[in-house]
Amino acid sequence: MVTTRSLEDLDAHSYQDYVAGGQGLVLIPTGATEQHGPHLPLGVDAMLSRAVCAAAAEELGALVAPAFSYGYKSQPRSGGGNHRPGTASLSGQALVLQTQDVVLEFFRHGIRRIVVVNGHYENYQFLYEGLDLAVRQARSLGLDDSRAMLLSYWDFVDEQALEAVFPDGFLGWDVEHGGVLETALMLHLHPDKVDMSRAPAHPPAELTPYDIFPEDPARTPSSGCLSSPTGATAERGELLLSTVRSGIVRAVTSEFGK
Amino acid sequence: MVTTRSLEDLDAHSYQDYVAGGQGLVLIPTGATEQHGPHLPLGVDAMLSRAVCAAAAEELGALVAPAFSYGYKSQPRSGGGNHRPGTASLSGQALVLQTQDVVLEFFRHGIRRIVVVNGHYENYQFLYEGLDLAVRQARSLGLDDSRAMLLSYWDFVDEQALEAVFPDGFLGWDVEHGGVLETALMLHLHPDKVDMSRAPAHPPAELTPYDIFPEDPARTPSSGCLSSPTGATAERGELLLSTVRSGIVRAVTSEFGK
Amino acid sequence: MVTTRSLEDLDAHSYQDYVAGGQGLVLIPTGATEQHGPHLPLGVDAMLSRAVCAAAAEELGALVAPAFSYGYKSQPRSGGGNHRPGTASLSGQALVLQTQDVVLEFFRHGIRRIVVVNGHYENYQFLYEGLDLAVRQARSLGLDDSRAMLLSYWDFVDEQALEAVFPDGFLGWDVEHGGVLETALMLHLHPDKVDMSRAPAHPPAELTPYDIFPEDPARTPSSGCLSSPTGATAERGELLLSTVRSGIVRAVTSEFGK
Amino acid sequence: MVTTRSLEDLDAHSYQDYVAGGQGLVLIPTGATEQHGPHLPLGVDAMLSRAVCAAAAEELGALVAPAFSYGYKSQPRSGGGNHRPGTASLSGQALVLQTQDVVLEFFRHGIRRIVVVNGHYENYQFLYEGLDLAVRQARSLGLDDSRAMLLSYWDFVDEQALEAVFPDGFLGWDVEHGGVLETALMLHLHPDKVDMSRAPAHPPAELTPYDIFPEDPARTPSSGCLSSPTGATAERGELLLSTVRSGIVRAVTSEFGK
Amino acid sequence: MVTTRSLEDLDAHSYQDYVAGGQGLVLIPTGATEQHGPHLPLGVDAMLSRAVCAAAAEELGALVAPAFSYGYKSQPRSGGGNHRPGTASLSGQALVLQTQDVVLEFFRHGIRRIVVVNGHYENYQFLYEGLDLAVRQARSLGLDDSRAMLLSYWDFVDEQALEAVFPDGFLGWDVEHGGVLETALMLHLHPDKVDMSRAPAHPPAELTPYDIFPEDPARTPSSGCLSSPTGATAERGELLLSTVRSGIVRAVTSEFGK
Amino acid sequence: MVTTRSLEDLDAHSYQDYVAGGQGLVLIPTGATEQHGPHLPLGVDAMLSRAVCAAAAEELGALVAPAFSYGYKSQPRSGGGNHRPGTASLSGQALVLQTQDVVLEFFRHGIRRIVVVNGHYENYQFLYEGLDLAVRQARSLGLDDSRAMLLSYWDFVDEQALEAVFPDGFLGWDVEHGGVLETALMLHLHPDKVDMSRAPAHPPAELTPYDIFPEDPARTPSSGCLSSPTGATAERGELLLSTVRSGIVRAVTSEFGK
Repeated sequence: MVTTRSLEDLDAHSYQDYVAGGQGLVLIPTGATEQHGPHLPLGVDAMLSRAVCAAAAEELGALVAPAFSYGYKSQPRSGGGNHRPGTASLSGQALVLQTQDVVLEFFRHGIRRIVVVNGHYENYQFLYEGLDLAVRQARSLGLDDSRAMLLSYWDFVDEQALEAVFPDGFLGWDVEHGGVLETALMLHLHPDKVDMSRAPAHPPAELTPYDIFPEDPARTPSSGCLSSPTGATAERGELLLSTVRSGIVRAVTSEFGK
Repeated sequence: MVTTRSLEDLDAHSYQDYVAGGQGLVLIPTGATEQHGPHLPLGVDAMLSRAVCAAAAEELGALVAPAFSYGYKSQPRSGGGNHRPGTASLSGQALVLQTQDVVLEFFRHGIRRIVVVNGHYENYQFLYEGLDLAVRQARSLGLDDSRAMLLSYWDFVDEQALEAVFPDGFLGWDVEHGGVLETALMLHLHPDKVDMSRAPAHPPAELTPYDIFPEDPARTPSSGCLSSPTGATAERGELLLSTVRSGIVRAVTSEFGK
Repeated sequence: MVTTRSLEDLDAHSYQDYVAGGQGLVLIPTGATEQHGPHLPLGVDAMLSRAVCAAAAEELGALVAPAFSYGYKSQPRSGGGNHRPGTASLSGQALVLQTQDVVLEFFRHGIRRIVVVNGHYENYQFLYEGLDLAVRQARSLGLDDSRAMLLSYWDFVDEQALEAVFPDGFLGWDVEHGGVLETALMLHLHPDKVDMSRAPAHPPAELTPYDIFPEDPARTPSSGCLSSPTGATAERGELLLSTVRSGIVRAVTSEFGK
Repeated sequence: MVTTRSLEDLDAHSYQDYVAGGQGLVLIPTGATEQHGPHLPLGVDAMLSRAVCAAAAEELGALVAPAFSYGYKSQPRSGGGNHRPGTASLSGQALVLQTQDVVLEFFRHGIRRIVVVNGHYENYQFLYEGLDLAVRQARSLGLDDSRAMLLSYWDFVDEQALEAVFPDGFLGWDVEHGGVLETALMLHLHPDKVDMSRAPAHPPAELTPYDIFPEDPARTPSSGCLSSPTGATAERGELLLSTVRSGIVRAVTSEFGK
Repeated sequence: MVTTRSLEDLDAHSYQDYVAGGQGLVLIPTGATEQHGPHLPLGVDAMLSRAVCAAAAEELGALVAPAFSYGYKSQPRSGGGNHRPGTASLSGQALVLQTQDVVLEFFRHGIRRIVVVNGHYENYQFLYEGLDLAVRQARSLGLDDSRAMLLSYWDFVDEQALEAVFPDGFLGWDVEHGGVLETALMLHLHPDKVDMSRAPAHPPAELTPYDIFPEDPARTPSSGCLSSPTGATAERGELLLSTVRSGIVRAVTSEFGK
Repeated sequence: MVTTRSLEDLDAHSYQDYVAGGQGLVLIPTGATEQHGPHLPLGVDAMLSRAVCAAAAEELGALVAPAFSYGYKSQPRSGGGNHRPGTASLSGQALVLQTQDVVLEFFRHGIRRIVVVNGHYENYQFLYEGLDLAVRQARSLGLDDSRAMLLSYWDFVDEQALEAVFPDGFLGWDVEHGGVLETALMLHLHPDKVDMSRAPAHPPAELTPYDIFPEDPARTPSSGCLSSPTGATAERGELLLSTVRSGIVRAVTSEFGK
């Protein structure tokens, strides 16, 4: 039995034993290096996807791979935009290749079940493309039973949790960048990395139903948040994490078995 | 004055005159070759984005470029999945390069305002990446005042239209593949290409909040539609088109001026 | 039996039936968005390859895929050059990837015989590369009996047709850009898109046996045509189309069987 | 003044203030996910380059960017080979693009001095290529004063430290994979992640002066170490870190000023 | 004054002096590694483009860069096809990148006039793309006066030479692979590398006006030649070389000045 | 039996016979176009790897493929840097693709044993990546017994030879660019291409243990040599070649059999 769920902390011989069991499952957290307002650190997205993976791995008997710390370009309609200082992003092709390469490596080791857990909205389609290419390539190399899942953790927040966390009504995922969800999770998981005294209190951003190029910095709040994190508490973060964890555990178990 | 809004029908000398006016605006419709159930043709997405562009171009004095007839891989959660016969898709990189190349060409001609009108959900992020790269490259070549917009036409369907089109309640965009929206628009625009006698009547697909690789064909209805198009009428299609057209015209005018 | 030869107008279920017959044949027309002088529209190349495919498909029982509306960069020695307004081209890599992706998709559906019909001289080598890569990739995925053809439609104009269309002598394919061949075909197929009153009457371009970079706009006629279309008639267009169609039908039948 | 040297722990507004000072310096640690024998964890390379960066950043007033946790393929002559379980590597192109993208982003923010600190031998040439491309691209975008350094931390271990750490003689860097150097540093920095009871005691690997494809697992010790870590102590690790830190601080100061 | 026209034989300091003169001209020969029948060596294409460059360089005061020894895939309609043993080709992308990189390097040195001399039909479009990209990139780096030419040497064989070399009538360039032209040039330039006793005497290949994938080896003569080299003599080779050389010298002088 | 060891001088039919023997072995020399000081030509690296291959091929019964005449960017710490006139380099991706393509072609012919002989330090990792990708691709195409080696020729200079060539002590490979090793080999192999009267006599370069971007030309001697070639003689070159040849022959025989 492995002594840690963190793949980077595990030695290769123990990993080999784990894989040899035939039921190996690897979770890959993906995030971004992206501004999240004045009260949250730049690494929020990777921190949260890492924490979600760690929580689910415990129940699933899975290993958590090193996180993707850089993500696809931040977009104004979901993350404030890529023009802001601190946001350091990958091109689409870099993210696709990284995903394809890493996933194929775990398949090569003998891991047959992989879950990529996304923590940065803009990543999703490029992670999808990388996974699709990896699975095709695995097939062309004879690794035919290789399977994978892709999910964004917030898609496992259910109605009940939404109501509890947003008693005054949920404004929609699009303005949740640097808002209550991420702040609450951070207050629960990394309270020392949150400075609520700097949290902005402006009204939610009014987003256009389109994007413009080059971006117009005036479109989104200068705080970098798309809505105010007021209302975020550690308790609500704990509830969110618990909801997401159990949802993911259920989904993975249902797809890949125990 | 140009005699047609369709760029492929225009001769180069008239186009040059149009560009020389300094107020040139080009709309690029993008679609896919993708199954849309037994009652709709494979080319729906390009047909609809082309029609939306044509309608908006009339009011905007714009030209409509040849459509992108192939799009990014269909995904089960928005389009039925790429495994189905008839769906013929591009890799992410192919779509990014095509977008980057074509947009940069119009900038090179002297067009300074471009709108990419998306008609296939899965395209969006790859169109975004292509536009971002084109605008950066334009800047490195000294074409500093080049600007572009990107939109998906259904993001301009407003609440009022939703209520009129879905009197029993709107089920959400994710199950609209081959459903009421696309069918109504086709009934209005290309009634001869719709066969309502083949329209499926099954309940809406229950989508998972994640993707799996390789896809599982059993997850989505075998019809290829994610919800039933029952309720689609030409009148509702006309209303949808009119709403979308005026929304896009307002947005483009507001961004790029008259 | 399918009710249309146009793949974009066909529904997926009928397409699946067609493929299931085991004798499926798909024709892919490829063109360009390229200036063709003051009397022809920018979309000539795709219009003509589409028309050639439609004509051949009728006799071959084939389907016609959506055309590639954008092609490789126009070159002065065959098309007037890429510097001219209205010419909106792809990089080589974009065209290679698009070809590779689309062809592989039809192979994946179960189509085993594909013909790419080129309508823009400069495309040929990039289509060739895309086809070569698609066929290799198909093999690595176990689709070993996948076969394809590549042709440019004018290579099926025979001596007899040349003599009939060019009674004063044929000047060679290299100066046929915007000249008699394309104009005659357009007069036959799309007379409303040709304005013979604007057709230039200058002598044929004197082409250098080499290319220069960057292009020199002064090298080719400012009309954008490499020779005068005078002499083009709808009757000659009809003869050309008929010759090309029967040549292609013979070739495809001979390679792929009935 | 920033309150942390860790960029992922810093908020964007504080980062912006830091950049605005005009003397910003960013260190990027790069590692790998690679087997390091039975006594060390898979994440050694990123852990060590991160620690080296943190130590140097303190003295330099620099920020440490999120580490590259995945590196180029492990090679038998420096790392045991890529065939071993646990080693999850990137292709060359993925690493080049990631480096180019991330470096260019920091230049875009206004950071003009970047140091990439390598912790995995096989990465070097791909990091070099990424940096070279980023600096060229920066220049084409007008960011002409952007400068960067690239180093592998062990190149700052001097003769004196070598003698102290290897009293019986240094065997050469090529067999140091999973050996005394990395183990000593880990004992100093992360003693809880080292299990000396599992440390192999075999003689150093006899490396061929060439590589073979596909790799031959029998060439290198089955432990995954290229030499025995016996002799590694936390004290020696502390000495190594101190030597490397002061060497890097001297080099960076000499190149980029205080 | 340089003591050799061969760049690989020149030292860097003399090259620098040459460039500093401001009138530097570099010729880049490109070929292939491709079967040319039983009587000619695999390296014919590079040998001939190298010889053409050497001859022209003498008159032009130019330098000859190292040849591209590998070319794009051989095609049945111009070179026998890529399936034959001995033909070792590059993908399109590899040739494009090589051309772009090398041309840009000479521009960077201060060379402002480059001629790429093609000796393998199938290369042309990929060389064109590489040159186009290099010239664009040069412009984005401020090297605005960089100019280049691209030519295939046989396009400088004039009518008079054709009549002298083919007294019984010229069959067309398409069947000249391994035929009279290349054999005559080799007999003049490298008689020791030609074995006329092995020269095939079969009639010219009957080429189809299309390509098929995968290639059908039965389509072209098993000799690997597309026509018989009978009739090739060293004298005719000398005449061909002289014609080509003076044609190229005239063209380059006319474009780039003395 | 083949009459030449040089693949470019061999005809395809003789090559096919050679391959059919089942014991075919191909050596691929790789070099660079790179400044080597005032006394050596730009093509040294390819000349020397070619000569090493020729010498080894004689004993091994192998064929020598056309050399890669262009290599990866010269770096200050091993070659003087890429900023110097005369150095014309490839990007990493261009070199990777060229290697992958060419190696796969020989595998396709039926060659099962390939040795890439490197003559330019900076190439190694990109050649490695190209070989790794080629061998994977070969496997996905069913060519499972394809094997390859990669080596840099100087890694076969043994202690005894070093002592004989550097009686005053060896300074290390890193400063050997344009120094005694390469000069001695050239004096033995191509005395007419060496001008010892121009050989610089400065002390060896003091190299930094890091790289900077953009390069600083002041860091390395303006001669372009990293150490003085004084001491190079044809006799020492002969000894070096002989040592390298027999080392490589032993290694190849030991890996691939006789």
